[in-house]
Amino acid sequence: MGCVQSFRELCDRQKNTNVRKSLPAVCIVWQTAMIILFGVFIRYNEEADPHWVEHRHTNNISSDIENDFYYRYPSFQDVHVMIFVGFGFLMTFLKRYSFGAVGFNFLIAAFGLQWALLMQGWFHSLDYTDGKIKIGVESMINADFCVAGCLIAYGAVLGKVSAVQLLVMTLFGVTLFAVEEYIILNVVHARDAGGSMVIHTFGAYYGLSISWMLYRPNLDQSDRLHGSVYHSDVFAMIGTLFLWMFWPSLNSAITDHGDGQHRAAINTYLALAATVLTTVAISSLFQKHGKLDMVHIQNSTLAGGVAVGTAAEFMLMPYGALIVGFCCGIISTLGYVYLTPFMEKYLKIQDMCGIHNLHAMPGVIGGIVGAITAASATESVYGVEGLINTFDFEKDFKDMVPSRQGGHQAAGLCVALCFGVGGGIAVAPLLIKNNTEIKYIFQENKLWN
Amino acid sequence: MGCVQSFRELCDRQKNTNVRKSLPAVCIVWQTAMIILFGVFIRYNEEADPHWVEHRHTNNISSDIENDFYYRYPSFQDVHVMIFVGFGFLMTFLKRYSFGAVGFNFLIAAFGLQWALLMQGWFHSLDYTDGKIKIGVESMINADFCVAGCLIAYGAVLGKVSAVQLLVMTLFGVTLFAVEEYIILNVVHARDAGGSMVIHTFGAYYGLSISWMLYRPNLDQSDRLHGSVYHSDVFAMIGTLFLWMFWPSLNSAITDHGDGQHRAAINTYLALAATVLTTVAISSLFQKHGKLDMVHIQNSTLAGGVAVGTAAEFMLMPYGALIVGFCCGIISTLGYVYLTPFMEKYLKIQDMCGIHNLHAMPGVIGGIVGAITAASATESVYGVEGLINTFDFEKDFKDMVPSRQGGHQAAGLCVALCFGVGGGIAVAPLLIKNNTEIKYIFQENKLWN
Amino acid sequence: MGCVQSFRELCDRQKNTNVRKSLPAVCIVWQTAMIILFGVFIRYNEEADPHWVEHRHTNNISSDIENDFYYRYPSFQDVHVMIFVGFGFLMTFLKRYSFGAVGFNFLIAAFGLQWALLMQGWFHSLDYTDGKIKIGVESMINADFCVAGCLIAYGAVLGKVSAVQLLVMTLFGVTLFAVEEYIILNVVHARDAGGSMVIHTFGAYYGLSISWMLYRPNLDQSDRLHGSVYHSDVFAMIGTLFLWMFWPSLNSAITDHGDGQHRAAINTYLALAATVLTTVAISSLFQKHGKLDMVHIQNSTLAGGVAVGTAAEFMLMPYGALIVGFCCGIISTLGYVYLTPFMEKYLKIQDMCGIHNLHAMPGVIGGIVGAITAASATESVYGVEGLINTFDFEKDFKDMVPSRQGGHQAAGLCVALCFGVGGGIAVAPLLIKNNTEIKYIFQENKLWN
Repeated sequence: MGCVQSFRELCDRQKNTNVRKSLPAVCIVWQTAMIILFGVFIRYNEEADPHWVEHRHTNNISSDIENDFYYRYPSFQDVHVMIFVGFGFLMTFLKRYSFGAVGFNFLIAAFGLQWALLMQGWFHSLDYTDGKIKIGVESMINADFCVAGCLIAYGAVLGKVSAVQLLVMTLFGVTLFAVEEYIILNVVHARDAGGSMVIHTFGAYYGLSISWMLYRPNLDQSDRLHGSVYHSDVFAMIGTLFLWMFWPSLNSAITDHGDGQHRAAINTYLALAATVLTTVAISSLFQKHGKLDMVHIQNSTLAGGVAVGTAAEFMLMPYGALIVGFCCGIISTLGYVYLTPFMEKYLKIQDMCGIHNLHAMPGVIGGIVGAITAASATESVYGVEGLINTFDFEKDFKDMVPSRQGGHQAAGLCVALCFGVGGGIAVAPLLIKNNTEIKYIFQENKLWN
Repeated sequence: MGCVQSFRELCDRQKNTNVRKSLPAVCIVWQTAMIILFGVFIRYNEEADPHWVEHRHTNNISSDIENDFYYRYPSFQDVHVMIFVGFGFLMTFLKRYSFGAVGFNFLIAAFGLQWALLMQGWFHSLDYTDGKIKIGVESMINADFCVAGCLIAYGAVLGKVSAVQLLVMTLFGVTLFAVEEYIILNVVHARDAGGSMVIHTFGAYYGLSISWMLYRPNLDQSDRLHGSVYHSDVFAMIGTLFLWMFWPSLNSAITDHGDGQHRAAINTYLALAATVLTTVAISSLFQKHGKLDMVHIQNSTLAGGVAVGTAAEFMLMPYGALIVGFCCGIISTLGYVYLTPFMEKYLKIQDMCGIHNLHAMPGVIGGIVGAITAASATESVYGVEGLINTFDFEKDFKDMVPSRQGGHQAAGLCVALCFGVGGGIAVAPLLIKNNTEIKYIFQENKLWN
Repeated sequence: MGCVQSFRELCDRQKNTNVRKSLPAVCIVWQTAMIILFGVFIRYNEEADPHWVEHRHTNNISSDIENDFYYRYPSFQDVHVMIFVGFGFLMTFLKRYSFGAVGFNFLIAAFGLQWALLMQGWFHSLDYTDGKIKIGVESMINADFCVAGCLIAYGAVLGKVSAVQLLVMTLFGVTLFAVEEYIILNVVHARDAGGSMVIHTFGAYYGLSISWMLYRPNLDQSDRLHGSVYHSDVFAMIGTLFLWMFWPSLNSAITDHGDGQHRAAINTYLALAATVLTTVAISSLFQKHGKLDMVHIQNSTLAGGVAVGTAAEFMLMPYGALIVGFCCGIISTLGYVYLTPFMEKYLKIQDMCGIHNLHAMPGVIGGIVGAITAASATESVYGVEGLINTFDFEKDFKDMVPSRQGGHQAAGLCVALCFGVGGGIAVAPLLIKNNTEIKYIFQENKLWN
């Protein structure tokens, strides 16, 4: 025993020496690269530039309040809270991994948003007159969205990967996300305000396929470190609640000014409320003695927000939002009860935070709901101008009709699925190289001082 | 002992079987009812409808930023945080009841807001042309307000009632609230921006009379589970601080655009600051050795926000707000020191979170302050248009004068008191039927997995 | 041992008797003084006054949305969260001092903001026509800023001073702050949107010189109470994250409407992201076995926000913000590794929360970055109107040029340094009088019930 112990310590020391070199090296080098790329490419857009005063006069904008900042900044801050406190604290439930959950979430989000500004900028906000990316408040929101995809993926492998592996996962995750988003939104011309497809479906399958590739049977040994304690579950509720409360801001953050943002917020608010009730019902029904399970309350209550993401800006109608939330609460909780153990046992996919139940299934449902809602849009419900604004039937797509838009939405969902699964399988081998570090699982005392 | 133990376990199993059936059944059936009622009654208002573009042109509205969403959404999100994180975490102080505090708070708020949209909609936003309720951001704020009343009531019976009992309490609480609110605001024509009367007085007396009706002397046995531990008190401070910080948003959320919202936020900010100092003073003065009591810091510091609710939109003046806060800090803390033990011992009213000190007394004070401030309003202070805007002296009430408005305010307070006490006494018998479950008190291990 | 014990208890009782009298007395008397001063001096400004309707017509303001409330209130609420939850929870890391951190933070902030409204009002918003201070949403933000300076100072002496000493520190801190702010912004005409100089440099040196004056060698005895435990470190991360996320709101809260607020938010967002990566790099590099230190993650990740405070509203450029964040993460973390132990050992300055690394050094860097950025401003980058708006080259300063503005910025930094160090040395003797209470250090059980 003592021998094994000292041998393990020796290994740890060797690995730690590598970590000691690799983590600082990656952070410094990548951050330096960001500075250079930002220097070459990134500038303020006209709403954040001091020439805004002249821009206002030229474009006959009556007031400073018309600056997009005032339309979107409150939503941006809510989304920002979801990314850092919401996702961070949601993953603190493991009794020995709270620092890792909140700390590594912080690290990869901070890196990811810089890389996302570049990647999304090249695809969406490149100014061809000077070759620069022009950023503003909407770019910051989109960068946070992009990061969300990678944080979802982190949920699948929580406690099983090192900080360097997470950074590599994020680098490729953001890259894949930007390409996938460009294809779905611009090429396929699907609409996805809250990112049911673009963020949740992609992120969840990206993480799950990485987890599948990294599967090691002997990881089961550490099951005793796998649980939660009373206070860690209360910390996780902080994450849950901030995600739940601010989800209406997420789904409405980049929708159309005016009625678009207003409607998206209402739909999300309602869908989430319905989810809570069905989650409690199913949790109580399937636990012995009718007890409630904190894992369900922490996670499945959020499924409605995911599933209403695509259709939130459409005329889903208040009762439609409730129906979506109703179904997702049931499906997501049943997923925790039956599907997660099944996937671990038979498919060799460990899903630490149950992202398949919280993001993958509700994301796919969201894509389908979006396709149906779009296909059934009519001019009488939306009005002529409303239909054009809501579905962006302009420029190349000015001859689009709702029924075809429904097909495009479905095509968008397929793209997200393919990028998620394919991307994860492609990226995982790059992580396995450092796979010795996988022994760290759930043992924070090796990682944090 | 062993025999008693096994008998109790038998009882628990039986009860649990009931819970296993009743909680899921209530959640599923009530949520289904909500979907049907929403399908029949609820639609988006014109600011959340895609015809908004046409509405803008017709009504000569110059810009999307004039959509009410941009006036009220940041305040809505702050109120939303108060409901779910504020109230939820404020009640986590019990060492064995953190899950119940935050989890059941979540459940009843999610149900309550749906039912509130319907109930308040029938009374306030029914469109008689098509028989539909038209909802927007202000409806969501009002639904959150309505839920707040029921969460206050939950504070009185924390740990003593089951989830099903709480849902029943919320169903009737929301119903009573909507009727009471309609009478106070529309019939009596009292103003109550922050809900000192409508929310706090009603909610507190509703909860206290239920607690009085449910009183069981043998509950004292579980006193050892009644305390807090160090970390549960820190969690409760999260609730306190989010309530304290966002209270200016609550009191200004539905006041008049422009100066109304501005003034309400300033008054609340000041009242709350003064309350903190007097709470600390009285807490230190009345504890042995001049120590401070976390219960006072967690609760009484909020009393100023409650008490300034009605008058926040009036010309209370900054020093007036400070005086209200000053007095309420003292009264509320003294309530914890003297009144709560007295009520439990002699009046048989157990008040788990001390809502009589935090909501009932400050709410009544708030109603009185509102009446005085309204009665002393003059045209020189408010201006002609200002007076009409602030007190809504329009339509049926265009001949109203401030002195009479003061009387109406006082009448509103009486209505809130009657509905609170009467409603609680009427609803409690419906809860007692399931009263065997009351044994669960403070023993989370029976309720949560 | 028993004798010593009982002697200490005797002392404690005597001191406690004093506390029992002094804390309530200070709170009540000072709060009463505030009420009187507010009654004499403080009124609503025209945007919070019911005459706003007439003001709108007179000044041809087209809509209520032009009320400054809608430009600044969301930022105000974010700043408010930083003050009460951010600073409060950041200091909860000590295992025996969480109540004191969050509770005393609450107390002194609540007092400080009232006194700040008066002090800053006399200097900045005194209406000479009627001798009244007119307050609005910008006054509330400035009051919160002013309080931030004193809370930074609290970080240096955390656990070493009583509540009364803290209140005295705050009274003089706010007074000094208001004078210093007036000199820097109005006399020297330096710009300091995010307060790198005015708030952080002043606050940190004010606290550090007080800590230096209060130094007692025997305090080292209590080192065993000086540490953190697992959950207290997770609580501290709540503070860190809310500070980190809302820092863009702090730096943009009082900048120019339109592009000014927009640009300040973007710069701060980027600087903070870069800081996280370099903090992790240096923390991992200098800890044994490449582990990460939670103290660094909790504190140094925020240094970029401090350092970008002055220049956030200037044309720092996105890559410039990243460079500032990059450097500050390194410097701040190295400060924790080398400078804090050095200062304690050789300079006799105990810095409990490491405010020298988080606020002092980054604040000075921020002042220097601001001076350089201002000096290098050109009309081609800012535009003619943009230059005037950004640097406020109006009235007495309409002949100012950027190069001279750079000099004024540097002069402002010197003023902040002098006021910080000088103020601390001047105020400390007033605290030493009550210095017997210093024995309480880290022993919350003596202070809280």
